[in-house]
Amino acid sequence: MLRLTLDMDDVMADTHEKLVDIVLKDFNTTLFKKDFESAPMRELLHPKQLTRLRRIMNEPGFFGDIQVKKDARETIYKLSHYYEIYVATAAMEFPNSFKDKFDWLQKHFDFIPWSNIVFCGHKSIIHSDYLIDDHVRNLDAFKGEGILFSATHNLRDKSYRRVGSWNEVAELFLPNK
Amino acid sequence: MLRLTLDMDDVMADTHEKLVDIVLKDFNTTLFKKDFESAPMRELLHPKQLTRLRRIMNEPGFFGDIQVKKDARETIYKLSHYYEIYVATAAMEFPNSFKDKFDWLQKHFDFIPWSNIVFCGHKSIIHSDYLIDDHVRNLDAFKGEGILFSATHNLRDKSYRRVGSWNEVAELFLPNK
Repeated sequence: MLRLTLDMDDVMADTHEKLVDIVLKDFNTTLFKKDFESAPMRELLHPKQLTRLRRIMNEPGFFGDIQVKKDARETIYKLSHYYEIYVATAAMEFPNSFKDKFDWLQKHFDFIPWSNIVFCGHKSIIHSDYLIDDHVRNLDAFKGEGILFSATHNLRDKSYRRVGSWNEVAELFLPNK
Repeated sequence: MLRLTLDMDDVMADTHEKLVDIVLKDFNTTLFKKDFESAPMRELLHPKQLTRLRRIMNEPGFFGDIQVKKDARETIYKLSHYYEIYVATAAMEFPNSFKDKFDWLQKHFDFIPWSNIVFCGHKSIIHSDYLIDDHVRNLDAFKGEGILFSATHNLRDKSYRRVGSWNEVAELFLPNK
C-alpha cells in the first residue's frame, strides 16, 4: 500500500478562513473578505499585523475549532481504503498547538490512528510516497512526490502538480472517480 | 551531512530510572532497585501495576523533569558538528506529554532547533540515515540503519548493532575518539 501524507493547515483544515475572519473582525482594516481570496496575507497586511496574527495562532485553543476543508473528511476516508494515510503538520512552530491539533484530528478524522500523526518542523524527515501540502518549501524539502494544494500564497508556483480542492485530490488518487 | 535521528525516552532521557523510583516509592512492592537493572518492567510488575504506571506517564508534568542520560548532552553536542541531528519521539502515545517533551528538549538540548523535533507514532515515517532507539519495534519499522540503545526490555535482542552508553555512541559515530 502506498503511503499518502497530508498536511493539516490549509489542506485538511481551513486555517486561512479563520485567520481572515479574525482580521476582518478584530483588526483595524479597510480590506474585504474578497481581497483575501486572490492575494497572500503577507502582501495584504502590515508586518505588525502579521506578528499579531502569529501571536494569536500560538494562543491555546486557536487550532481547536477550525473548520474542516470542504469534502476533506469524505475524500480522506475513501483514500484510506487505498493508501496508508499519515498526517504531518509543522506543529513545532506553535508549541501551544499540540494538544489542540491532536484533539482536532481525533474529533474530525477519528479513522486516522494516532500512530499515523506526526508533529514536525522540517518536512524532509517525512518518509512517504506522496505529500499533499500548501507550502512549496515543505514540498521542496520532501523526498517523495509532492502535490501542491492551492492557497493564496502559492498561486504563482509552477514547480509541482497542483490540486485546487479535495475533489481534485479524489480525481488524482482514487480509482474510477 | 548524514542524518542521525535520536529517540528520546531511555536514549536521551532516563525515563526508566524515574519509573523505577515511582514504583519503589509509591507502589506496594517487595522488589529492590537492583531487580530493575536486569529484567524488564513488564516481567517484574503485575498487569494492574503496569496500567497504573501508564496512567502516571500520561499525567501532565511526568516528562518534564526526567534526568538526562549520562553523557548524552555532551556527546550529542559533538555529534551535531558531524551529523544533522533529529529527535523523534513516540509522543502520540501520551497526548499530555507534548508540551513537557518540547520544553524538556529546549531546556537540555537548546542546540537542537525546533525544526528538527518530531513527535510521531509509528517510526516508519522517519526519513533518516540512522536511528538510535531502545525499541526493536521502532527499528523494525525504520527504513534506514537502526542502532539499538540497550535497555532492560531489549537485552536479548540480537538483530541490531547495540550501544550500551553514550560513550559507545561516540565511539561508533565520532571521528578520532
